[in-house]
Amino acid sequence: LAGLTIAIDAMGGEHAPAMVIRGLDIAHTRHPEAKFLLFGDQSRIRPILDRHKKIKDVCEVRHTDVAVSDHDKPSIALRSARQSSMRLAIEAVDKGEAGGVVSAGNTGALMAMAKIVLKTLPGIDRPAIASIVPTKRGESVMLDLGANIQCDANNLFQFAILGEVFARTVLGLKKPRVGLLNVGEEDMKGHEVLRDASALLRAPDLQILFEGFIEGDDVWEGTVDVAVTDGFTGNVALKTAEGLARLYAGMLRSAFQSSTLAKLGYLLARPAIRGAITGRCFLA
Amino acid sequence: LAGLTIAIDAMGGEHAPAMVIRGLDIAHTRHPEAKFLLFGDQSRIRPILDRHKKIKDVCEVRHTDVAVSDHDKPSIALRSARQSSMRLAIEAVDKGEAGGVVSAGNTGALMAMAKIVLKTLPGIDRPAIASIVPTKRGESVMLDLGANIQCDANNLFQFAILGEVFARTVLGLKKPRVGLLNVGEEDMKGHEVLRDASALLRAPDLQILFEGFIEGDDVWEGTVDVAVTDGFTGNVALKTAEGLARLYAGMLRSAFQSSTLAKLGYLLARPAIRGAITGRCFLA
Repeated sequence: LAGLTIAIDAMGGEHAPAMVIRGLDIAHTRHPEAKFLLFGDQSRIRPILDRHKKIKDVCEVRHTDVAVSDHDKPSIALRSARQSSMRLAIEAVDKGEAGGVVSAGNTGALMAMAKIVLKTLPGIDRPAIASIVPTKRGESVMLDLGANIQCDANNLFQFAILGEVFARTVLGLKKPRVGLLNVGEEDMKGHEVLRDASALLRAPDLQILFEGFIEGDDVWEGTVDVAVTDGFTGNVALKTAEGLARLYAGMLRSAFQSSTLAKLGYLLARPAIRGAITGRCFLA
Repeated sequence: LAGLTIAIDAMGGEHAPAMVIRGLDIAHTRHPEAKFLLFGDQSRIRPILDRHKKIKDVCEVRHTDVAVSDHDKPSIALRSARQSSMRLAIEAVDKGEAGGVVSAGNTGALMAMAKIVLKTLPGIDRPAIASIVPTKRGESVMLDLGANIQCDANNLFQFAILGEVFARTVLGLKKPRVGLLNVGEEDMKGHEVLRDASALLRAPDLQILFEGFIEGDDVWEGTVDVAVTDGFTGNVALKTAEGLARLYAGMLRSAFQSSTLAKLGYLLARPAIRGAITGRCFLA
């Protein structure tokens, strides 16, 4: 990341701009060379930056009054929010002022604007939302998690390519294993779209290690490094899993409160199990 | 269940018939009035029944050599397994010899045979797989979990009706709340099929408490008593959730082994947290 500038939508997300700037503080610690180009309301950004002195020198603020709200429809935001912090941050990438853009704001609007302003890579029709998920073996990448509700075989094929590149470059894997999420591992299982995508991924000249179909629990087993699915299934599956993890953590906390011995046991074990109790190891 | 006879596929499932008979033992303890009509290989069933003396009097065995394997395609099983324990158990319901049928065997074959032999209820086109899931507020029913990979709005509507009746009769709820699983709660979210199903469920003369769309984490929050989805999404979501719960339980067990204090804490807290550690409270 040496010398890289990242465009920041300082007004994106529920607790912006304070939370965004706290994030920049963490990013600066890990990547002291990176510079940040912030877009947003400078009367709100400046006072917070003043309290984060160590990042003041790597931050440049560009003022705008307009911000995309979480409730705006993407189509509305596209038309009416041309001076928004989100749009200007994206345009900074298009102009070559920044190498990438970060926003914690309205996901639909961010996807739509980025697609219009920056386009997708050649051969990639639609962007996808990816996340790194913890597994028994380490970390995997899962996509799409909600950008594309309806997907055809080509979309899934392209997500597999995107995910494979992500796993190589971001997770540092030499030959990532790629799998398609389905209701069974057998070739005849699932939607026709999945069988067609599987055929595309088995093309002999394709330099991808395609492992075929995987099931929901394989995501956490680390059976593959890249779990590919459509945005509807990915979103529902991940939210269902996160919800169960939260329920689990809650029941565990109650159990630890249920007797004096359990409370004492908790106190002794706390340093070791804190990550598991809070669910921090899983949940965003 | 007074006086009720249940037809049992004694050869269904990985550890049949031993596991099936252990299950009958538990069922007998809870429902001493129930009688069981077992179908399967009597040379394997009899010796096991001899070791479960308390249920011998409520079990009647009908011999057959044929059993459906887990690897049989439903279409093959339908044609060639007319003398199978599964088929004969289903036919016992059709003949009025039993009030219901239980099999732990090949799900696809069971669905196909039951649909051919017993048909569905009037107004219900396709059967669904339902499960009771634990929630913060108690228990909910979720369906379909894999019987119907492709669903139209009518299928989802009918699953909602089935689930609502299940929640009233099995969970004992007076007015179960019904929700459709989607990627967001807003009316315009998700597939067209979901929006159409939602419109059907909002029909003013329908005596159902329809709460609209829910998201994946609502399943465990207990936001509704009946969570309705297509078989593909339901299967992937539940397997993903179960996989995460297993990963969680595994990490917790490792954490408890990671230091002497943690081990001691575990010993003290074990009686209280055993359910959470094993994951028994969640997983089938």
